[in-house]
Amino acid sequence: MTTRSLTARAIESLALGAWILGTGGGGSPYHGLLNLRRLYRQGARVQVIDPADLADDAAVAVVSTMGAPLVMQERVVDPGPMVESVRAMERYLDRRFDAVMAVEIGGSNALQPCQIGAVTGLPVVDADAMGRAFPEAQMTSFAIHDLPMAPLTLVDIRNNTVIVARAESWKWMERLSRRACVEVGSIAATCKAPRTGREVKECGILYTVSKAIRLGETVQEARRTHRDPIQAVVDAEGGRRIFAGKIRDVERRTTEGFLRGTATLDGLDEERGRSFRLAFQNEFAVGWLDDRPVVTTPDLICVMDAVSGEAIGTETLRYGQRVAVIVLPAPPILLTPKGLAHVGPRAFGYDLDFRSLFAEAS
Amino acid sequence: MTTRSLTARAIESLALGAWILGTGGGGSPYHGLLNLRRLYRQGARVQVIDPADLADDAAVAVVSTMGAPLVMQERVVDPGPMVESVRAMERYLDRRFDAVMAVEIGGSNALQPCQIGAVTGLPVVDADAMGRAFPEAQMTSFAIHDLPMAPLTLVDIRNNTVIVARAESWKWMERLSRRACVEVGSIAATCKAPRTGREVKECGILYTVSKAIRLGETVQEARRTHRDPIQAVVDAEGGRRIFAGKIRDVERRTTEGFLRGTATLDGLDEERGRSFRLAFQNEFAVGWLDDRPVVTTPDLICVMDAVSGEAIGTETLRYGQRVAVIVLPAPPILLTPKGLAHVGPRAFGYDLDFRSLFAEAS
Repeated sequence: MTTRSLTARAIESLALGAWILGTGGGGSPYHGLLNLRRLYRQGARVQVIDPADLADDAAVAVVSTMGAPLVMQERVVDPGPMVESVRAMERYLDRRFDAVMAVEIGGSNALQPCQIGAVTGLPVVDADAMGRAFPEAQMTSFAIHDLPMAPLTLVDIRNNTVIVARAESWKWMERLSRRACVEVGSIAATCKAPRTGREVKECGILYTVSKAIRLGETVQEARRTHRDPIQAVVDAEGGRRIFAGKIRDVERRTTEGFLRGTATLDGLDEERGRSFRLAFQNEFAVGWLDDRPVVTTPDLICVMDAVSGEAIGTETLRYGQRVAVIVLPAPPILLTPKGLAHVGPRAFGYDLDFRSLFAEAS
Repeated sequence: MTTRSLTARAIESLALGAWILGTGGGGSPYHGLLNLRRLYRQGARVQVIDPADLADDAAVAVVSTMGAPLVMQERVVDPGPMVESVRAMERYLDRRFDAVMAVEIGGSNALQPCQIGAVTGLPVVDADAMGRAFPEAQMTSFAIHDLPMAPLTLVDIRNNTVIVARAESWKWMERLSRRACVEVGSIAATCKAPRTGREVKECGILYTVSKAIRLGETVQEARRTHRDPIQAVVDAEGGRRIFAGKIRDVERRTTEGFLRGTATLDGLDEERGRSFRLAFQNEFAVGWLDDRPVVTTPDLICVMDAVSGEAIGTETLRYGQRVAVIVLPAPPILLTPKGLAHVGPRAFGYDLDFRSLFAEAS
């Protein structure tokens, strides 16, 4: 397999870009970035493989840290359980993996395959299964393509190891793994159902590691040249800036293994006098402008620091922050009727039809 | 391996005796008995093996239905998930079992190895790991002997299959498996950590299948000869009758995968004017006579119908039943300091020292 080595600089860009693609979730990549900086200082390097270069029968580990982002802030990220979740799956399958990939390219979960790769030497596939972050197991392109949902391995910091060997449905996989996750403290390293190289090529969302790096570079370049990083992202990714405001209120609770809540923004500048409300389940799901829903999942709803262009996660929202809300287009697979059944607003319990901001604009 | 075949009559006695040894828990054996009657009518037979005849390296499956007894009454018992829990463990271990045994000889769980044996042909070991029933995973002679607690397989009626591959402790095994059990509806078939023949011989509680059959026969014989079945059990097993009364109140809730609550009895005959209160977590844990604790786990606290001598489970207690409370001696391993740490009153949250009724008497 031909692979390319990620530079330390690319890892920085990846963390920055993935935090934007996290749409509030996926967990702050900061601790994972610190861990990768240390691994890089120790000489480790992350190899990335183009999905097109995967053999059809290659075995790909699909990993993520499951749980509530707020808890991730309280427990230092350690590649130990991450690697163990992959090793537990290898023991269960009685075969070795050829590569590792993120189930979601958002937030810290984009760095997890890199941490595993830096420790084990496994190459990281330039792909994920969401093109962003989502809170639940069935919210992936693999689920939308009806690929098998089991087995899954889940490992906590005590090395408690749970395998969901068979699930009746994707929803049952979500329920069973979520329960185990809640019981071990609402945070656990997981290795999802293994995929073949062919499944990744046909059903994955491709080149999203590259996309996250590019997004991070866009922000870095704008900062360096004293341009507005938010406008730079919107321009580069074909996004839209939909609100500029100050956070007036955050209501947030860690419950059932998720971080749920709402944030309310008071408008600034042109938006003075208007208000914007965001609802989230780990990730931002719906946005209301003056009580009218104007944006919903799966469009990527991103909240960014108005000056630095740094993404703000649902766990790091706080009173007084000056932010911009931007929307980026979702991967096409998520916009199909089947995709919307898995990740549209109704999948999150909102009685709203999905209307893309980008469909309106075109 | 030399085995003996259980007669249909012995199965009836086993169900009757095991329900007494269940000390209120283990689940009513009625549905399991109906299932075994059908299997016997179809020509199946249960083979029992003397633990002394197990090879040291024999692989023994240790099974039980986990959950809240009340829910067991609402879901028809089917050997399908029971057999599947054993098969899932065989696939996980990549070896076949030589025999099957009950983790607890109480209630329906005494019949579970018989149902599995009748379907698969595996012989049933004449032993268990409690000598009665207890609600939690760490309340076994295997745990008291510090044998490994993992792996465990758990299968529900939808064939959802969870494997707890590694647990930091017996308590973590209990927590992780209980959570999965609650999520699938507070009832699931489990195959506990496999045991070698040697482990069963050294750490099991032996000949309890025979004991349960003998107990059932004692009741049947007393009924046939018009003697008091309760007195017959007390005499045959060296037990004590400690209260006779009528159930005045039952407070009961299915919670956290258990059936918890209390029952209050008003005295009859010599006990008129006195009251007796029982607290239970699936099984009866403590008994108070006029608010003074007089009996606690691990002594076997059994509530029996005053006329028929049929055991009454915590899920079948109801207002107005005329009952006798009897106490039977616990297996010696449970009375050691280590044993009491696992199954004494403090293990159930009661700030009481264990004082055996039988130590007092001797």
